[in-house]
Amino acid sequence: MSKPLLINGERLWNTLMEHGRIGGTAKGGVCRLALSELDGQGRDLFVHWCKEAGLEVRIDAIGNIFARREGTDPSRPVIAMGSHIDTQPTGGKFDGIYGVMAGLEVLRTLNDKGIQTKAPIEVIAWTNEEGSRFVPVMMGSGVFTGAFTLEHALAATDVDGLAVQDELRKIGYAGEVSPGQVPGGMFGAYFEAHIEQGPVLEAHELTIGVVPGALGQRWYDVVVTGQESHAGTTPMDLRHDALLAASRIVEKVNALGRHFAPYGRGTVGYMQVLPNSRNTIPGTVKFSVDIRALDDGDLLAMEADLKDFIAGLQKADARLQVDMKQVVYFPPCHFDEACIESVRAAAQALGLGHMDVVSGAGHDAVYVADVAPAGMIFVPCKDGISHNEAEDATPEHLAAGAHVLLNAVLKHAS
Amino acid sequence: MSKPLLINGERLWNTLMEHGRIGGTAKGGVCRLALSELDGQGRDLFVHWCKEAGLEVRIDAIGNIFARREGTDPSRPVIAMGSHIDTQPTGGKFDGIYGVMAGLEVLRTLNDKGIQTKAPIEVIAWTNEEGSRFVPVMMGSGVFTGAFTLEHALAATDVDGLAVQDELRKIGYAGEVSPGQVPGGMFGAYFEAHIEQGPVLEAHELTIGVVPGALGQRWYDVVVTGQESHAGTTPMDLRHDALLAASRIVEKVNALGRHFAPYGRGTVGYMQVLPNSRNTIPGTVKFSVDIRALDDGDLLAMEADLKDFIAGLQKADARLQVDMKQVVYFPPCHFDEACIESVRAAAQALGLGHMDVVSGAGHDAVYVADVAPAGMIFVPCKDGISHNEAEDATPEHLAAGAHVLLNAVLKHAS
Repeated sequence: MSKPLLINGERLWNTLMEHGRIGGTAKGGVCRLALSELDGQGRDLFVHWCKEAGLEVRIDAIGNIFARREGTDPSRPVIAMGSHIDTQPTGGKFDGIYGVMAGLEVLRTLNDKGIQTKAPIEVIAWTNEEGSRFVPVMMGSGVFTGAFTLEHALAATDVDGLAVQDELRKIGYAGEVSPGQVPGGMFGAYFEAHIEQGPVLEAHELTIGVVPGALGQRWYDVVVTGQESHAGTTPMDLRHDALLAASRIVEKVNALGRHFAPYGRGTVGYMQVLPNSRNTIPGTVKFSVDIRALDDGDLLAMEADLKDFIAGLQKADARLQVDMKQVVYFPPCHFDEACIESVRAAAQALGLGHMDVVSGAGHDAVYVADVAPAGMIFVPCKDGISHNEAEDATPEHLAAGAHVLLNAVLKHAS
Repeated sequence: MSKPLLINGERLWNTLMEHGRIGGTAKGGVCRLALSELDGQGRDLFVHWCKEAGLEVRIDAIGNIFARREGTDPSRPVIAMGSHIDTQPTGGKFDGIYGVMAGLEVLRTLNDKGIQTKAPIEVIAWTNEEGSRFVPVMMGSGVFTGAFTLEHALAATDVDGLAVQDELRKIGYAGEVSPGQVPGGMFGAYFEAHIEQGPVLEAHELTIGVVPGALGQRWYDVVVTGQESHAGTTPMDLRHDALLAASRIVEKVNALGRHFAPYGRGTVGYMQVLPNSRNTIPGTVKFSVDIRALDDGDLLAMEADLKDFIAGLQKADARLQVDMKQVVYFPPCHFDEACIESVRAAAQALGLGHMDVVSGAGHDAVYVADVAPAGMIFVPCKDGISHNEAEDATPEHLAAGAHVLLNAVLKHAS
């Protein structure tokens, strides 16, 4: 790689700050729910800037926005970048919008420097990534890649009964383009820059996360039934304590995550104890189990180990009943080797400290990876906090991520 | 001991069944809240039966009922028996009333057989043992023994603002006698027969529980604060999982109970997880700890061990905060050696299978033990279930307990 190009970090920061005023909250966050009037304003400003930069804008039927800078070789597929404009109800100034504005900044930089690429390049804003107002989550990229149908997505309603198709029309983003249709054919590559939304880069004092993939997830509902009885009159050896059994499962779930380090995760986040009275031994405990891993084989091994452990608990106490039911499954996603390597090489060429950081959360890139080579670039966020008005990132880190994005894209577009 | 006398088991059963109609519920339980109209009817029937048996009835200012059969030696202090007539809102047919009716049956039997005792004998119905409607719990025996003042008890109100003093008057049980005053001086001994309210006798297929004492109790409120974070993006080694720490404390509390077998108890009955979301690592967990033991030294050793354990958790993770605050303390109660031995000897002489069973719950006998030699007799109840309309006991077991009561009382009254 020749001497790496740099984007304009100050312009990127100012662009983010200006855009963050749309839906900006008193606490410094952003509330820009998908397909709300504020989402419409956020889209309009993005489209305005794209046109200002000479990009050609098209909108598809689920409201995804594609802004294109043509290349010199009509036979080359487009190299794409993107993320989303919508936020959580108490969201921050960086989740989503950073990937969109970093893409815009890449194209502005190419304009500034008068660089013509062989392949066309697009920056994309995907519709309703957050899923706060409408499910399915990652709606725009999900329809684009065929994870679910356009009709299903358009019919989705919010808590007030308002439908996606009507809300899209209201804000002027019910486009004509058929989702999944890309002029010149599907992306040659797709890169998404995003804040990490976790603590890993900060803990390692590194700037760039090279993302090998996104964790697969299996979620379960578990109900432990023992026997409710008096905490004073029931000796320890005559108890069937549902909370004790549940506590042992919490410990086991944690151990499973540790065993499959560095990418294993095991979490009990929800728990309800019944009857939940101080001096009554709990008779029933309901809780969630969330296990994640980068390989489905690991996920299945975790599940099998957990089931063995539960069988052991029941063998030790025949009065104990444990019901475990899978309620969610997301398969693991492995990003494209060439895309991963382009991100790593760009970071290296730029002299930026980097490490592999797996994505523990969902992103539009995960759906895109089903139809095109894809990769992601993470930058640190303060204390790993996201989906929170306190979400924060430094101008230097955000610029660094966009430098990497520019150079990775150039490698594929040249 | 000479050939043991026997009470009339059929009469005892019929008396219990007849009395159980007052406040009887469709599910076969009893609802006779303290100082309610039904409690008044229950008291009236007891007093009627006492007078029918030639007993002299007196009522004290907190409504305790004392029914006396005189002895032949005026210098001997009274030997007392008793329990309570009030029930839980969804109570059973045996909790409390069994000890009162077994006492009445003992005196009826002495009448039948024309036996004169040297010491007078009394059967007592203590006011508001359950504490469901008015606190303090064990109100009648508590005032009688000076655990708290008469004024404090009389001023207590129920959820509708009705006061004990007015409710006592309404049902005609605001007596003249000063609580704690007993003709001829304080009891020479006090025996309380009660269903076990636990599973121990049933598990051992034994009939009589000889009660060495009642467990001391220390209750705590514990708050564990870790760090709330995303279950996907936070690797295991960067977590501060409040529920994992809480689960380890649940396991430790259980181990403490086991370590101090057979009388140790360790229970976490209440737990609240925050924010209680499936894919968020819990940041805060609030829970109760209830430890019990027959010796205060054991209780304090349990507490010290638990505090050490918690300090270890915090040493392993400096971001973890654990606050533990004692909210309840009941000291252990050791019953009188001679009374315990009289119960054991009576069971032996009657050829009844027996074992020591500690009381894990509170009873009027625990307060009485502060002012007089006291002991208790437990009989099995089905599945250890009590404070429940399904509470059940067999006529044979109930008769056996009353046989023991008769012979223990005779030993002290002769």
